[in-house]
Amino acid sequence: MKRAGVAILGLGVVGGGTYQILTEKREYFKKTQGVDLTVECVLEKNVERARELGVEEDKIANSIEEVVSNPNVDIVVEVIGGTGVAKTFVTKALMSGKTVVTSNKELFAKHWPELEAQAKKMHAGLFFEASCVGGVPIIRTLQEGMQANKILSIKGIINGTTNYILTKMANEGSSYEEALKEAQRLGYAEFNPTADVEGFDATYKLSILSSLAFNKKICIENVYREGITGVDKEDIAYGKEMGYTLKLLGIGKDTEKGVEVRVHPTFVKNDNPLASVNDSFNAVHLVGDAVGEIMLYGRGAGALPTGSAIVSDVIFAAKHDQYFYANFKNNQQGNKETKFVKDFVSKYYIRLSVMDKAGVLSKIAGVFSKNNVSISEVKQVSYEDGKAQIIIITHECGESLVKKTLDKLQSLDEVYGVKGTIRMED
Amino acid sequence: MKRAGVAILGLGVVGGGTYQILTEKREYFKKTQGVDLTVECVLEKNVERARELGVEEDKIANSIEEVVSNPNVDIVVEVIGGTGVAKTFVTKALMSGKTVVTSNKELFAKHWPELEAQAKKMHAGLFFEASCVGGVPIIRTLQEGMQANKILSIKGIINGTTNYILTKMANEGSSYEEALKEAQRLGYAEFNPTADVEGFDATYKLSILSSLAFNKKICIENVYREGITGVDKEDIAYGKEMGYTLKLLGIGKDTEKGVEVRVHPTFVKNDNPLASVNDSFNAVHLVGDAVGEIMLYGRGAGALPTGSAIVSDVIFAAKHDQYFYANFKNNQQGNKETKFVKDFVSKYYIRLSVMDKAGVLSKIAGVFSKNNVSISEVKQVSYEDGKAQIIIITHECGESLVKKTLDKLQSLDEVYGVKGTIRMED
Repeated sequence: MKRAGVAILGLGVVGGGTYQILTEKREYFKKTQGVDLTVECVLEKNVERARELGVEEDKIANSIEEVVSNPNVDIVVEVIGGTGVAKTFVTKALMSGKTVVTSNKELFAKHWPELEAQAKKMHAGLFFEASCVGGVPIIRTLQEGMQANKILSIKGIINGTTNYILTKMANEGSSYEEALKEAQRLGYAEFNPTADVEGFDATYKLSILSSLAFNKKICIENVYREGITGVDKEDIAYGKEMGYTLKLLGIGKDTEKGVEVRVHPTFVKNDNPLASVNDSFNAVHLVGDAVGEIMLYGRGAGALPTGSAIVSDVIFAAKHDQYFYANFKNNQQGNKETKFVKDFVSKYYIRLSVMDKAGVLSKIAGVFSKNNVSISEVKQVSYEDGKAQIIIITHECGESLVKKTLDKLQSLDEVYGVKGTIRMED
Repeated sequence: MKRAGVAILGLGVVGGGTYQILTEKREYFKKTQGVDLTVECVLEKNVERARELGVEEDKIANSIEEVVSNPNVDIVVEVIGGTGVAKTFVTKALMSGKTVVTSNKELFAKHWPELEAQAKKMHAGLFFEASCVGGVPIIRTLQEGMQANKILSIKGIINGTTNYILTKMANEGSSYEEALKEAQRLGYAEFNPTADVEGFDATYKLSILSSLAFNKKICIENVYREGITGVDKEDIAYGKEMGYTLKLLGIGKDTEKGVEVRVHPTFVKNDNPLASVNDSFNAVHLVGDAVGEIMLYGRGAGALPTGSAIVSDVIFAAKHDQYFYANFKNNQQGNKETKFVKDFVSKYYIRLSVMDKAGVLSKIAGVFSKNNVSISEVKQVSYEDGKAQIIIITHECGESLVKKTLDKLQSLDEVYGVKGTIRMED
C-alpha cells in the first residue's frame, strides 16, 4: 500500500476540516483508495486550537524548518492564506522537494509561474483544486476532463458571499447593506468584506481558471473588476420583472479578437442554468468546442467542502508520480503576445430617471441611435413628481459606445440621471 | 514530447467524432498538452465510411490482429458498442498490452471486473469516461475529484433520449408516442428505441457510476428498472400544476440498510437543480459526506461531446503511466457481502379514478391509514360522468406498504382504477 505523510500549515476553518477528514477517514482511504495517509505534523501559531482539534503534542511543529526537514512529511498542505508567510512556507516546502497542496487563491493568482518553476525543478507536485470553487472539482476538470477541447468561454458564480447577498436582495427585497449584515451574522461574510464584495476574491479565481481554460497565464491585472457594493435593490427588482437574475459573474472568453476576462454584476436570463444557482452555492459554466456546454455546481467554501478538495488533491498526489504542470511559457507578468479585449461587447440594462413629458423618450432614443447603440426593449416603470423611470435594454454593442451614449444622456436637461447600468449575458 | 499512436475500432458517429478531433487538433494538443497523438490505424467494416472521413488507405486495418500487433499503436479506442466483437477486440487489445479507451457502457456494465483484471495483468490502462454521460467528466470526478468523500447518493438524468421525450411531453403536452416520433425524426432516438425508453441504457450507466461512487461492484441485475413507455401525459400535467417535473432518474443510495439502485420515472420538485435539466441534456447530482451537494451538467451524447470524453481519456493515458483501477474484490456477480435494499422508501404520487360521491375520499384515506401510508397532500382534479380524479401525495414510506394499499384500493367498488403511480424525490 502506498503511504504518504501530510503536514498541515494553518488550522483555521479549512485546516481544521482537512485535519478532521484525514484523521477520521484514514481506514476508509486505505480501503477505498489503497493509500495510507497520516498527519505527521501541523504548524499553527495558536497552539490551543491544535490541542482542541486533538493533535498530539509531539505533532505540533514549532517552525516551518521543522516541518520541511521532517523525512516523514511527503505532502505539505498550506491553508494559511495570503501572500506573506504562506508564500515563504510554500517556497520552502517546494525547495525541500515536498509536494504542496494549497487552497490559497491569492498566492496562486499572484505567484503561480514561480511556484510552478520551483516545483518542476524539485519534481514536486503542486496542487490547488481547493483554491477555486471549494469542493467542486473544476481544476481537475480543466486539467484532465476537457483537454480535448479548446475552451471558448467560462462563466462562473465563483464567490459564495456575494451570491448569498444577491440572492437575499432578490428574494427578500433587502438592500445591499441589510443583506451584507445578515451574511456577516451567518458567517458567510467577513467583518471586513472587501475581498468578497469588491470582487477581488472572484478576480483571483477567474485569473486561475481562465489561465487553465485558455492555456495562457491570465494575470489579475488583466481582469476587469467591479464588485456589488453599488448594486441597487431597485435594479434587481426591475430585472426580476423582466425575466433576469442578477449575479456577480466571472467571465472569460477566448475569441479571435483576444482574451476577455471580467468580474462584474451581470443580469442572466432566468432560463440560463446559472440563474438558479442561489445562496452560497457556486457554479461554473464552460463551453468547449467539442463538448459544448458543461456546468459544475456545488459548495464554494466551508471547512468540509474545501477540505474535500484538499484531501482529494492529497490522495491524487499520493497515488501518482506524474503531476500536472501548466507549463506557461510566460512569466508572472503574463505573455506579451496575448492580446486582451478591453472594449467588451455586451448587452446592457440601463435605468434612467427622466422628465415625464412628451418627446423625452424620442429624444433619448435618438441619442442611442446616433451613437450606434441599438435598443432591444424599453420599459417605462414609474412616475412620481413629474419624473419617470425608463429601462432600456440594448442589443450587443461595444462598451465605449455605451459610455459615449450615457455621457451624452447625462448632459440632457430631460435626464435627471443614469440610475443603473448592468451588463447582461444570455 | 510524449507520443502515442491511436487505433480506432468502429467509425460510427462517435468513432467519426473521435477521428475528427484527433486529426484536426494534433498541433493544438502538442502545444497545450505536450503530447503528439497520431491515428495509426482504424478498423471499420464499412471501408467507404473510413475513406469518406479521409483515412489514408494504408491506415485502414483488415483485422483486429493487424491492429494489436502494430507496434505503433499504444492506445486502442473501442467505439463499436455491444458485447460481441467489441468484447473480443477489447480483450485482444488488453492482452497485447495496449491501453483501451471505450465508450461502451454495456460492455463495461457487464464485464468490467474481468476486463480490469486483464488490464492490470498487462499493466495497461482501461478508460471509460465516454461510457457515461458523454462529454461530462463524471467518471474522472468520481475517481479523482471526490475521493475524500464517502458518497451518500447519486441521482442522475443519464439518458438524453428519454429526457428529450419527457421535456417535450411536459412543454407541449404531447403524448409519449408523439414525442418519441419527434425524437426519432431528430435522431435523438433509434428506430428501435427499447434500450433507451425501457431504461436499459440508464441501467448500464447507473451500474457503472454507482460502482465507482460506492466502491463496490453494482451489477445490472441489482438495479431496479422501469422505463418511460407507460408515462401518461396527464400525470406530467398534474405534476406540473403541483410544482413537480417528471424525469427518468438513475438513483443510487448507500445507506446503513444497504445499497439501493434504481432507474424509474420520478417527480422532482421544481427547485431541485435536476428539474431544469431539459431536452437531451444530462446531469448527475452527487452528495458526498464532506463536499455536500455537487452537480455536473452537459451533453450526454453526440459525436463531438462523446469524442471529447474519449480524446480526454486518450490524452490522460498518453501523459500518465499510472492508471486507475477500481480493484473490486468481488467478481462479475458482485460481492455477496453487499446488501441491497429491495423495499425502497420513497414519496409517491398516486392518481385514482373514483366514484364522485360523498364519503369516497374518507374511505380511501382510511385504506391509506390502515396500511400505515401517511398522506401529505390530496387534490381532487376533475369530475366527469360521475367520476372524479384524486391525486394523493404520500409522505415517505416503504414500497411494499404502498403496493398493499393500492391492491386494497383497487378492490373497492368506489375506485375505478389506479391511473398513475410515480415515485418522488425532493
